[in-house]
Order: sequence, then structure tokens, then C-alpha cells
Amino acid sequence: MLFPQAMIFPTVIMEVSSHNLEVAETLISVIRFLVIFLAARTLAEILVRLQLPTILGELLAGVLVGSSGLHLIVPPDTQAPLNDTFSTLIASLASIPSVDISQIYSETFPILQGVATLGLYALLFLTGLESELDELVAVGAEAFTVAVAGVVIPFSLGTIGLMSIFHIDLIPAVFTGASMTATSIGITASVFGELGYLKTREGQIVIGAAVLDDILGIIILAVVVAIASGGIFDPGPTLQLIVAAGIFVVAAIGLSRTAAPVFDWILDRLKAPGEVVVAAFLVLSFSCFAATAIGLEAALGAFAGGLILSSSKHIHAIRERVAPLVSLFATIFFVLVGAGMDLSVIDPTNPENRAGLVVAAFLFVVAVIGKIAAGWSFFSKKPTKRLVVGLGMMPRGEVGLIFLGLGTSAGLLTPSLEAAILLMVIGSTFLAPILLRLVLKENTSSGSIPLTSNPS
Amino acid sequence: MLFPQAMIFPTVIMEVSSHNLEVAETLISVIRFLVIFLAARTLAEILVRLQLPTILGELLAGVLVGSSGLHLIVPPDTQAPLNDTFSTLIASLASIPSVDISQIYSETFPILQGVATLGLYALLFLTGLESELDELVAVGAEAFTVAVAGVVIPFSLGTIGLMSIFHIDLIPAVFTGASMTATSIGITASVFGELGYLKTREGQIVIGAAVLDDILGIIILAVVVAIASGGIFDPGPTLQLIVAAGIFVVAAIGLSRTAAPVFDWILDRLKAPGEVVVAAFLVLSFSCFAATAIGLEAALGAFAGGLILSSSKHIHAIRERVAPLVSLFATIFFVLVGAGMDLSVIDPTNPENRAGLVVAAFLFVVAVIGKIAAGWSFFSKKPTKRLVVGLGMMPRGEVGLIFLGLGTSAGLLTPSLEAAILLMVIGSTFLAPILLRLVLKENTSSGSIPLTSNPS
Repeated sequence: MLFPQAMIFPTVIMEVSSHNLEVAETLISVIRFLVIFLAARTLAEILVRLQLPTILGELLAGVLVGSSGLHLIVPPDTQAPLNDTFSTLIASLASIPSVDISQIYSETFPILQGVATLGLYALLFLTGLESELDELVAVGAEAFTVAVAGVVIPFSLGTIGLMSIFHIDLIPAVFTGASMTATSIGITASVFGELGYLKTREGQIVIGAAVLDDILGIIILAVVVAIASGGIFDPGPTLQLIVAAGIFVVAAIGLSRTAAPVFDWILDRLKAPGEVVVAAFLVLSFSCFAATAIGLEAALGAFAGGLILSSSKHIHAIRERVAPLVSLFATIFFVLVGAGMDLSVIDPTNPENRAGLVVAAFLFVVAVIGKIAAGWSFFSKKPTKRLVVGLGMMPRGEVGLIFLGLGTSAGLLTPSLEAAILLMVIGSTFLAPILLRLVLKENTSSGSIPLTSNPS
Repeated sequence: MLFPQAMIFPTVIMEVSSHNLEVAETLISVIRFLVIFLAARTLAEILVRLQLPTILGELLAGVLVGSSGLHLIVPPDTQAPLNDTFSTLIASLASIPSVDISQIYSETFPILQGVATLGLYALLFLTGLESELDELVAVGAEAFTVAVAGVVIPFSLGTIGLMSIFHIDLIPAVFTGASMTATSIGITASVFGELGYLKTREGQIVIGAAVLDDILGIIILAVVVAIASGGIFDPGPTLQLIVAAGIFVVAAIGLSRTAAPVFDWILDRLKAPGEVVVAAFLVLSFSCFAATAIGLEAALGAFAGGLILSSSKHIHAIRERVAPLVSLFATIFFVLVGAGMDLSVIDPTNPENRAGLVVAAFLFVVAVIGKIAAGWSFFSKKPTKRLVVGLGMMPRGEVGLIFLGLGTSAGLLTPSLEAAILLMVIGSTFLAPILLRLVLKENTSSGSIPLTSNPS
């Protein structure tokens, strides 16, 4: 008696097969949730006992159950086949031919991705909520310098190195260089949040820089796409983007100083149940809308929405109600990131991989050094753990994967270059939380409250 | 830098239009959330001041913004056109031809429906969690009688009346009669929960009966489909369903007595953040899987999952974390139910509607009387507010709409009969919360804690 099933296939014909189709869709959706949460939770529990960030467990869980592992969670764009046992089980339970299962699986996958995106936004919203606006503004110059250095250093070192050492053509080299500029704000926010390090000076520099890196990433993509498509580079849209980004940052800071009392006034007058989470979600949706409408990422809007409410007197209630959304849906997001990584390119016994592995080693070193160096890019009289800042900028995560996906589908990259970028993304993504944990180890005992473990 | 967008259209080509497509998808999703929550919240706030259940506001909000109103939330299967201003706004913001917006809107709609279904399951899980197992078992006989009477009375009165008074053929009459047997467990649970009436004797009878009605509904559908498709009725699958339902009920009750300590033992050993909500979600997913796998509704599994955890010592923590999911996503569910209702059939100035309106008046009276009479169907020495039980069984809601959808797509119904069923569904759905509120008015002051307003 549910309706997504009935509506995905709008022409429900009254045959046994239509009901069986619904059963198959429900079973697939439910088993995917079970697989994701069982794997993520098991690995998170192991990692938390090793004193490592749980997000690493979620990413590893994704690899384990994903397109490089058990083939239970296979994003359609990876083209990876679905696990046979899975197909057979669903087929027999729902009395549907086993060959149809893959298609139903792919058709219902966007629902999972939609929920995952909701989780990422909720995480960024919570990150904004936990941010100290004054601290963020105070470190604005440092964050800006770190973001720019974290783009310029890996991009120039990467592009020049690929061209001079590996004799790679300009366009693939530029694209690969661009992919190295990414910073996964989601992973950074999750690690800093869990370790209770978000409100520190270093935490705010990294979050500020990661936000700015997201803005720079849009601009870089626009420029690279223009170059790659062979057209003449038109600075107009790029300038427009820069202006929009400026307006957005100013508006977000302005609203963070002024809008919270209005929000509180309205919230105090709401009487129907669920008012806190709905009101917070409305602010989140509206900020995402505003960011997208002026050409930026919705993810930036999510962060800004949280920042705007960071001085609300209801901040504790908001955090408590948004945190379960993060625990559930951001987990799905990170498992899907891991599930989309094709680790077969790592296998050195496969001769086809070797060229990629050498380039990958180069990219990986540049990727690590480039972002760590960015931690030393600013002048500051205040004591700052520069290594923490550099490591915080290191994980490429989903942003790196999206660069890779765009390059692949545009046919700009050779297979060995694709493998090399993927390895650089995987390496930086998995190494950053481990290194951060090691570096931060001595600093987490000071009674700070981890972002996600507290309320849920 | 998001991925659902990129993956819904897996062949992302590096052109301006692919980026614009993603922008359009994000804008459409975000605006839908804004519309749903602004409308639902506004009407809920009005209704709560009129001392009426907020779910009525959510359903009305759906009608207002849906396929009978502003055409902002139009489920693809209603075939209703999308609001022009909406299309034009998205088209201009995303630089996409306005004609493409409808298609993108429809293609991304299943994500919204998936989230809504999650909300329904969360609501039923919470309802199970708030249930008193002993009370539920104690009123088992009463609930069973109410469920059976609530099926037999409206079905027989409806079918016989349609055939004898309106000279309607056997198959459409049987199908219409079947559609009158539905009970919306979601609406009933929401109203009783909000009024703090779930743990009363009447509340438990209604919830138990609504659960059993859901099981009976599956069996009725199987029988009616067999009759309608002209085949010989094979009692085999039906008997299988009855056996499965029996096993499910016994297993759910058994696990409710035994599984909670195991759950608590495991939960106490989990250390990674978010353990409560993830563990609860795993139980919910597993129960939904089990119910679907043996041929029942996933919704029944969701209720059973909550019931199993109702004796957990962590019940307060679970409730607090699941409630925000209900506030957000069950709201979407009910708004979508309202949005799918086509109220144009009500207009009496349209001569085409008149035949339907007369039949509708008959169906509506039978629908109301049939369920209210069910409240008097059992013998009991304990004082029971029988009118509350009858009214609790009255709303047909989404279950009635699904019956209607199946009948329509199978071509079993005439247009006037379709309109009549829809009006019966609308009337019973909207009237039940109002009447329940009026009848329960004097009983809600006794310090009982509303289900949904407490934790979120």
C-alpha cells in the first residue's frame, strides 16, 4: 500500500507482475539500507576502538560493499555488475526474473542518492551551526590564503609535472591538475566535528578554506571546461560567479549577525509539533535555493544556513534534531562515495595498471605536499597548528570523484590517467583522517564535545 | 559538486546544458521542499489554534499546492500539468528551455516519494514504539473484531447498495466495495499520537485493528484482483498470506517480549557516534524486510519494529531521534496524499460530476456508518468509548487512494465511480480528524504527552 513503487512505474497494470515489481523495489531499497548500515556501523565500531575517525569506516564500508568489493551497493554510473546472490535472492522473493533485478536496482538508486545528498547538506548545515562566526571572520584572511594556495600549488605542480616529466598533453594535464585542487568539505567537517575540533582556530580556518575551495572549484571547472571544449575563454561568466560568490559570503555573514533573532521570534510563536526541525529545514532549503539560484553550489547554501542560525538561542534544540539526520543520511553519502571507487586499478600485478601507478604515485605526492604546504601559506602572529590546517585540506573525497567523472565522460583522460586520479583521490581521502587523528591525538582530551556523538 | 544530479543522468556530457540540468534538478528539489513545508506549517499552525489535528493541515496543504490547487506539487501519475510560473522560474534560473522542466520534475519526483515513504515508516515505527504490548495483546480480540467488522460492513453495504440502487455491474461494485474497507493507519496513528491518545484502551484497539485491516486489505486486493481479471479464484496464495500474517503477528509479539534486552545489550556496547538512531533504523529496516519477504506490507514491518523496541530501556533516546524524521518526512507523505487528490470532481456546477456526486453521497454515508458501526462490533465488560474506536477506523487516506489508483489503471471503473470513490476517500479522510478531535476534546487535558510534539 505504498506509493513510491506504484508511482515509479506509473502505468500500474493489475497483473501479478506489477505487485511483484513493487515487492522487488521495496526489498531492494530495504536491503541496501541494511547493507549500508551494517557495514558502516561494523567498521565504524572497529575504527573508533583504534581511535580513528568513523568516517574512515564509512568510506571503507563503501569500498567493501561497493563496486570494488561485494557488488551490493553499485552506483549505476560505475557500470559495475550487481552481486549475483543479491539478484537471485530478490528475484526468488519477489517472483521476478533475475535479469530484471539490475534494471529495478538502477532505477531506484537515485532515491538512495537523494537521501545521501540530504545527509551531506544536513552535515554541512550542522557544521555551519557549530561554527563561530566571529572566529570564522577573524580567520577569513588566513582561510582565503589557504584556499588559494591549496588550489595554486597542487594545480601548478601537478600540471607542470605531468607535462614535463610524463609528457602528457596540455588539456589532460590541466584537467588532472584541476582535479587536485578539490577539498572534500564533507570529510573535513566530519573528522573535525567528531574529534571536537571544529571550534578551534585551526578548525575554523580549514572550514572557511574548504568553503572557499568549493567556490574556487566551480570557477576552475568553468575555466577548464571552456579550455577543454576548445572554445575561446570568455571571462564574463567567471566574473559573474566571482561577484555572486562575494555577494553570497557577505550576505551569509550579514544574516548570521541579524537573522537569528527573527528566526527565534518566529519559532517562539509556532505551536504545531515538530516546529524546531521544520523551521531549521526551511532555513536550510532556502539557503540552498539562494546559493543554487546565483550559480553556486547548494552545499555552500547548506553551510551558510547553519551559520545563519549559529547565534540562535535554540541552537541546542536544532542540533539535537538535525544530528540524527546526519547520523543516518551522511553515513549513506560516505558509503556511496566509497562504493563508487574502483580499487581494481591499484593491483600492480596487472601490467595495464603500471603506467597509471607511476603517475598516481607522482600525483599523490603532489596532492599531499600541495595541500600541506597551503597550511604554511599565511602569516599569523597567533600560534596555529599549520600541519592540522594542511591535513584538513587534504581529502579530495567526493569532490575529486566528481572531477574525475566529468573528465571521464568528456573523454579528456587516458585510462592510465583516470586510474592515477582515482588513486590520488583514494589515497588523500583515506590518509587524511588517519594523519589528522594522529596529529590531533593529544588535543582531544580537553572536554570538547564531539559534533556528532553528542546529540545522537 | 553533488552526485544525485550527475547520476540521474549518467551520461554527463561536458556541456553547459549538463551543468544547467543539475542546477534545474537541485532547484526543483529544493523549491518542492520549501513549498511543502511552508504550506504544511502555515496550515498546521492555523489548525492547531483551532484545536484541530495538524495532519488535517498537512492534507489541506497538499490539496492547496497539489494537482487541484496551485500545481506546484504534482505527482506524475495525476497527469496534472506543472504550474507555469514554477516552470518559467526554474527555466530562467537554470537557463534551460521551459518545456524540459516538466520532464525533469517528473524524473526527480520518485526521490520525494521515497523520502515520504521513509517518513510513513518512521511514523509507524514510532507508533509501535509508543504502543503498550500488553495492552495491545489484551485488546487483541476487540481489535480483530473491529477490523473484520470494519471490512465486512462497508464492503457488503457498499457492494449491494451499488448493485441494487445504482444498477452497477458486479465487478466495479465489488471493487468499489473493496476500496471502502481501507483504513489509513498513518492518519489514525498521527491523530491519536498528537492528541496523546495512543496509549489508551481505545487507541490500542484502533491501532491493532488498523494493523489487521492492512493485512486484510492485502488479502482483499488479492481476491478482488483475481475476480476482476476473470480468472478462477485460487485460494492457495490467499491461504499462504493468512498463514504468513499469523506467523508475523506471533513473531512480532514474541520478539517484543524477548528482543529488547538483546538490543539494549548491543546498543550499550556501541561506541561510534549516532549509535541509537542507526541501531533503531537497522531494526526498522530488518522488520520491513521480513514483512515484505513473506508477502506482507513493509508498513506492517515498520510498526512491528517499533513494537519490538517498545520495552527497550533506551526508548526515550530512540523516540527523540526518530521524531525529527517523522516531523519532516511524514509531513511530506501527507502533503503528497493531499496533492494527489483531484478535487475538481466535487464541483456540482459541472453536469458531468452530478452522477458521481449522488453515488459519492451514498458511498460516503456507507463509509462513515460502516466504520463507526465497527466500533460497536465487540463485546467488552470494560468501559470503551466505542465512537472513538469507530471514528479512528474511518479515514481511508492514502490506502483508499491506492485502491482507486489500481482500479483506474485496470480500467475497472467508470469516471463517475472513480469520482465517487475519490470523494468518499476525501470526505472520510478530512472528517475523521475533526470528529475525533471533537469527541476527544474533554479527554486531552490529563497531562498526556503528545507523541510528536514532545521530542521535536
